[in-house]
Amino acid sequence: MDPPPAIPSYDFLTLGETLLRLSPPGMQRLDQARLFEIGVGGSELNVACLLARLGRRTAWVSRLPEGPLGRIVDGEARRHGVDTRFVRWIPDARLGLMFFEPGPAPRNARVLYDRKHSAAAELGFEDAPWEALIAASARVHLSGITPALGPSCRALVAHVAQSAAAAGKKVSYDLNYRATLTDTTEARAMLDAVAPHLELFVVAERDARAVLGFEEEAEALAEAIATRYGMPLVALTRSPGSEPGDILLAHGAIRYAPRYPVEIVDRMAPAMPLSAG
Amino acid sequence: MDPPPAIPSYDFLTLGETLLRLSPPGMQRLDQARLFEIGVGGSELNVACLLARLGRRTAWVSRLPEGPLGRIVDGEARRHGVDTRFVRWIPDARLGLMFFEPGPAPRNARVLYDRKHSAAAELGFEDAPWEALIAASARVHLSGITPALGPSCRALVAHVAQSAAAAGKKVSYDLNYRATLTDTTEARAMLDAVAPHLELFVVAERDARAVLGFEEEAEALAEAIATRYGMPLVALTRSPGSEPGDILLAHGAIRYAPRYPVEIVDRMAPAMPLSAG
Amino acid sequence: MDPPPAIPSYDFLTLGETLLRLSPPGMQRLDQARLFEIGVGGSELNVACLLARLGRRTAWVSRLPEGPLGRIVDGEARRHGVDTRFVRWIPDARLGLMFFEPGPAPRNARVLYDRKHSAAAELGFEDAPWEALIAASARVHLSGITPALGPSCRALVAHVAQSAAAAGKKVSYDLNYRATLTDTTEARAMLDAVAPHLELFVVAERDARAVLGFEEEAEALAEAIATRYGMPLVALTRSPGSEPGDILLAHGAIRYAPRYPVEIVDRMAPAMPLSAG
Amino acid sequence: MDPPPAIPSYDFLTLGETLLRLSPPGMQRLDQARLFEIGVGGSELNVACLLARLGRRTAWVSRLPEGPLGRIVDGEARRHGVDTRFVRWIPDARLGLMFFEPGPAPRNARVLYDRKHSAAAELGFEDAPWEALIAASARVHLSGITPALGPSCRALVAHVAQSAAAAGKKVSYDLNYRATLTDTTEARAMLDAVAPHLELFVVAERDARAVLGFEEEAEALAEAIATRYGMPLVALTRSPGSEPGDILLAHGAIRYAPRYPVEIVDRMAPAMPLSAG
Amino acid sequence: MDPPPAIPSYDFLTLGETLLRLSPPGMQRLDQARLFEIGVGGSELNVACLLARLGRRTAWVSRLPEGPLGRIVDGEARRHGVDTRFVRWIPDARLGLMFFEPGPAPRNARVLYDRKHSAAAELGFEDAPWEALIAASARVHLSGITPALGPSCRALVAHVAQSAAAAGKKVSYDLNYRATLTDTTEARAMLDAVAPHLELFVVAERDARAVLGFEEEAEALAEAIATRYGMPLVALTRSPGSEPGDILLAHGAIRYAPRYPVEIVDRMAPAMPLSAG
Amino acid sequence: MDPPPAIPSYDFLTLGETLLRLSPPGMQRLDQARLFEIGVGGSELNVACLLARLGRRTAWVSRLPEGPLGRIVDGEARRHGVDTRFVRWIPDARLGLMFFEPGPAPRNARVLYDRKHSAAAELGFEDAPWEALIAASARVHLSGITPALGPSCRALVAHVAQSAAAAGKKVSYDLNYRATLTDTTEARAMLDAVAPHLELFVVAERDARAVLGFEEEAEALAEAIATRYGMPLVALTRSPGSEPGDILLAHGAIRYAPRYPVEIVDRMAPAMPLSAG
Repeated sequence: MDPPPAIPSYDFLTLGETLLRLSPPGMQRLDQARLFEIGVGGSELNVACLLARLGRRTAWVSRLPEGPLGRIVDGEARRHGVDTRFVRWIPDARLGLMFFEPGPAPRNARVLYDRKHSAAAELGFEDAPWEALIAASARVHLSGITPALGPSCRALVAHVAQSAAAAGKKVSYDLNYRATLTDTTEARAMLDAVAPHLELFVVAERDARAVLGFEEEAEALAEAIATRYGMPLVALTRSPGSEPGDILLAHGAIRYAPRYPVEIVDRMAPAMPLSAG
Repeated sequence: MDPPPAIPSYDFLTLGETLLRLSPPGMQRLDQARLFEIGVGGSELNVACLLARLGRRTAWVSRLPEGPLGRIVDGEARRHGVDTRFVRWIPDARLGLMFFEPGPAPRNARVLYDRKHSAAAELGFEDAPWEALIAASARVHLSGITPALGPSCRALVAHVAQSAAAAGKKVSYDLNYRATLTDTTEARAMLDAVAPHLELFVVAERDARAVLGFEEEAEALAEAIATRYGMPLVALTRSPGSEPGDILLAHGAIRYAPRYPVEIVDRMAPAMPLSAG
Repeated sequence: MDPPPAIPSYDFLTLGETLLRLSPPGMQRLDQARLFEIGVGGSELNVACLLARLGRRTAWVSRLPEGPLGRIVDGEARRHGVDTRFVRWIPDARLGLMFFEPGPAPRNARVLYDRKHSAAAELGFEDAPWEALIAASARVHLSGITPALGPSCRALVAHVAQSAAAAGKKVSYDLNYRATLTDTTEARAMLDAVAPHLELFVVAERDARAVLGFEEEAEALAEAIATRYGMPLVALTRSPGSEPGDILLAHGAIRYAPRYPVEIVDRMAPAMPLSAG
Repeated sequence: MDPPPAIPSYDFLTLGETLLRLSPPGMQRLDQARLFEIGVGGSELNVACLLARLGRRTAWVSRLPEGPLGRIVDGEARRHGVDTRFVRWIPDARLGLMFFEPGPAPRNARVLYDRKHSAAAELGFEDAPWEALIAASARVHLSGITPALGPSCRALVAHVAQSAAAAGKKVSYDLNYRATLTDTTEARAMLDAVAPHLELFVVAERDARAVLGFEEEAEALAEAIATRYGMPLVALTRSPGSEPGDILLAHGAIRYAPRYPVEIVDRMAPAMPLSAG
Repeated sequence: MDPPPAIPSYDFLTLGETLLRLSPPGMQRLDQARLFEIGVGGSELNVACLLARLGRRTAWVSRLPEGPLGRIVDGEARRHGVDTRFVRWIPDARLGLMFFEPGPAPRNARVLYDRKHSAAAELGFEDAPWEALIAASARVHLSGITPALGPSCRALVAHVAQSAAAAGKKVSYDLNYRATLTDTTEARAMLDAVAPHLELFVVAERDARAVLGFEEEAEALAEAIATRYGMPLVALTRSPGSEPGDILLAHGAIRYAPRYPVEIVDRMAPAMPLSAG
Repeated sequence: MDPPPAIPSYDFLTLGETLLRLSPPGMQRLDQARLFEIGVGGSELNVACLLARLGRRTAWVSRLPEGPLGRIVDGEARRHGVDTRFVRWIPDARLGLMFFEPGPAPRNARVLYDRKHSAAAELGFEDAPWEALIAASARVHLSGITPALGPSCRALVAHVAQSAAAAGKKVSYDLNYRATLTDTTEARAMLDAVAPHLELFVVAERDARAVLGFEEEAEALAEAIATRYGMPLVALTRSPGSEPGDILLAHGAIRYAPRYPVEIVDRMAPAMPLSAG
């Protein structure tokens, strides 16, 4: 009914699913909780919020269910300054959920996903004016979670990566392997499809080894990845105790992320802000 | 692995789905909430809990997802004294959810169901030793929500009603019409299937008219229902302002539920405790 | 450092101060509280949020202190979809505060303002590209609270009203008399300055009598206001028990706001949504 | 009025007092609290809940005051799957209370007991069909707290230990010394009375030394205990920093409890789950 | 060890027990609570706090257990400005408790007392320099709850009333009948003992009839009380719906307490502020 | 209207500003908070509360705004036993505020002051009977925050220090440097004015170097301070990791504060209780 919104220009365009996160207060277990704290989280939207807080014009595209749960996600994105005007609102749909239980030692934190059949799992070509959005954006960010949500998502991610690169835009991709959503064969196939179009590839060291089959570590691993896939920038996130810590291989030069002592407030948070050169 | 549990004798056997209820504190709206209060609710389990609190030996049978969310439901039932040993635990399944928003005037309270694909929606013959359970129980209670969840539930409810009556047990049925789950044609068909087996039929006056097509009101309506379907007991729940209030037609005699002034703490609660003669 | 933001077109432009509201939970008194609930409120921003929720492109302009308290206000406005890109951020400034205590009978609710010396109290010509903003907007909304904040605010409101009318834009003004900020002489003088430029004037019946000196009531009062000041639309809000309720005099025709039974959740809320013809 | 409940068979039978625990949230001190979090705790019931969670059929017997406070304890036990049908409900009685204050260093956590004159302090022979319960159970667990509550408790514990052993049941006893309830002479006398009947004896290393007068440490201590008292199994719990940690001496063979890094969520928790061979 | 505190002069001296009140938030029932809100309440201390808030120099004397629970009571009294320097601190003692459950209709609110064996129940002659305190005070207030706590309290109240009157001080007495603490015979006997010494007697109409055996109502009842017992001032509190409301008979003249519409926040609160002529 | 209160004798007299502290629960950031926890804090009042808890008769003098916010501060002081009868209540004034955000690493905790134009910032000669208060007190405590609040405060602190010393009272002074309120030149000038009158001077090692220009450390620094300024007692507080820790130089003799392991509950707390010899 309303005319399609005009497309402003963006520094940064991303797309994907965002979940409602429900978690008990403090160190309570899920099965003893009387209250859930409500949060909002999704790999791509987290990145978009951080960039918006840093002053970049960012857009996030997704499918959200009409109604209050979708509005929680949309409102949180907007509160941080992310442009959500290209979100498509779906009637009678559900929002993906995630139940998070903190895990003070010797327990592990655990996440219970309840995301099947969500509105976002069917994100596809018809949901947004993708070519125009790409044309209006300087960079495009994708993650390996999205193609694992379903066939329309998989086709979309491959297409957007290819199309953005063809339009001369810089494309980044976070492997973000989730064993509950996909398997290593699919994850590798997806990466093969997008790799030729990437400027920046972000991957956890343990996934580079377990999913992609590398045997190197640290700097050698970053170089092996760049060699095999050919992206100019490889960001390798490493587990907390590693020395050195997170590594960025930029056009052949190794750079190290600074290390800070960290008190953990909440274990679920993006590990390394994107800062490609 | 464990042997099947022994079957004690029960005063009251019921079955059906129970949802986790998530609602914002106080009069907040869902889309401004930061916290959800956690509750547990299901038409049949609510009845079972009340009867257990009154000292009756009650059993509730269902399917629950393995893990903490299923344990919340199970634990709450047990806390009230309901026997849950015949609940079947399903791996990798989901629990039905219900988001409740209170509705101070002029808004209406509203309920957002997210119950599709739940473990309980596939409850069926293979989930419990139904014949033995019926044999061990004095009464069986069913509701019209269960058959609306899916074909295996529908077949099960029809079978349990028939089988219990054949075994000489008293069977009750609460129409409990939910427009979001079924339509009036199906609801009537289901009632037709179980009606011959019922001792007690519970129905809201507005559903008796809108779903079952009656045109009478109050006492005349109770009598018309008893005449058409032939149960000895008809409990007619009526809207808060009605005079007289809830009506029980017992073997041709009209009895009235006592009326109390009520301060509403939470609009979602069973309207009338079962008290068949 | 950043270039000035581009100006999109707006359905609705407004400006003014927004306060952080701190109030104890439930019916606690301020001096027994251990917690304050945080809210955000300002006459003009409330209107802007409602219109944004209804799908209008709205902008709100103000001065906010740099830092987290200003970000709370900005984030809440954006969450509702209000464009805040023309807010001016002021270093080392303070945000106006309001402490609210609910007043179950026989107490009255009370508000303790702590808003002096706030960043917004010095809003003025130099804070935004007013002419360009007016040119980009279909309607402009002002309130009588803003001119009472200080001389730069007073001059700004007079100028914006005059300038918007000269540019052919529709201007609305809510008298919103606050005895703690101004007196009746000033309030009348301010209204005299903006009245010739207004399409819509919103006023509470009790203020029309106590502040503007009218002696009529209800429809006669709306007509007397329209006659004295000459605006095409006069919206008269009336106290809860009045019969009839809120009145809109539109080009000589009287219209009545619908009446609903209302359960009070929070006494501080805009009385009547703007719905100019 | 109701007939006595039938006795099913149990893997595990225990008895004793359970207290309502009231503690301020977070690290607040008792005298600055505005809220108490409600918990339920008792040495024997804690063990019963853990075993029920692990799938064992467990029963806990006690005296509880009629009314809501007793129901909190009963409901929590049932929620975990513990059978409470042999709890005796006492009119006009009180529930023992415990006020817990966390103690971040350099303060110590402290517990304020208010348990005198409780319903459970008079637990005795007449409260349950002890012989039949013992006959129906594979194992019986007792603790040194119960005999310290009063003379009827002391006589009961001695009798149950003796009677269970005579019936060929395995009996365990946790010394659980509480200086606020008893003294070392009494604690030793009680242990002397039950020791000949025990399969498993659980004791903290510091109590073995301070209460029972041993001078050995670690493995040598476990062996000295087994030698003096003659039980086949001795579980020795040791303070957090000790190397090795908790020790089980089983028929002359030493076994060590695995050590995990632990983040403390709440200092009051059973130190070592029972796992007799 | 410390010297006895000096005695300043007081407008108002009172004595009695104060309980810690534990109640679930909102409309929760005690047996479903996870949190208790902590309050402090006692008939005499409530009066003392109100008078201190109105600027009177007031002292409250009692026995409190050493430790944090006693300090909660003491701190709350001091916060309101009541002088507690003559409270006697008792080691190893307990504080009386009261569990309060709100009662939205059709339930009744209920109070579960757990006050036996409290420190205050043994208040007596040796706990304070009563003669000197009376000499330093203009008025003394007593209630019928105190003598019902035990024999030392009963003797103390009788003595203080007599001694204060002999010293020319004005004495007030609130019958405050508690069926859980005493019976009507004792309550009447206690009143007979103090009545000759009273200036003001406060009594609920229903207690005047049920406890004291009067058959009159309203003004006639106040006059009958004054006639039988001979106090110059009789304050008669009446149930909420009565017309007229609370009555003060002052030296033969009837005065009525003003009536206000009241929204109930918490049903437990003093019914009528003392305002003797 | 009321006569001035009588002056009892005090062990300890102090004066200064106290702020309302608002902080989000747990580790939340200010700009994501929905609730603020309310606290009360001021350098001098903190000391007074500790001494009152230890049994000393202490008085704190200040200016507080009439109304509930002032009463929160006053009530908290009285709850701890501090005498506030000489606080002056100011109509239409504001209370200083402080917003506190916890700072888990790598963030720093931060404090946002909103204290300008507060009632206490104009504390001066006319606000209390200073000479009489000094005469009634054994010791007087002052801090370097107060003179930084404004000219009347500065004059008052200088006068009280001089006057107390002249009357033979022991005077203590905590430098308490706040870069947001003053600069090092002013702080040194103020210290020069009060130093000749001091028995005890409390200063953080980093301020002794950065503000007062010393170059020594630890014991040598304490001695250099005593030499330059001539007070008999110098208390030097040192940063948490230092060896040795806090130092007291008492009449030439060095004493060390005991060191405890500390779990941080709240970073804002007085570092070292006053314990002058």
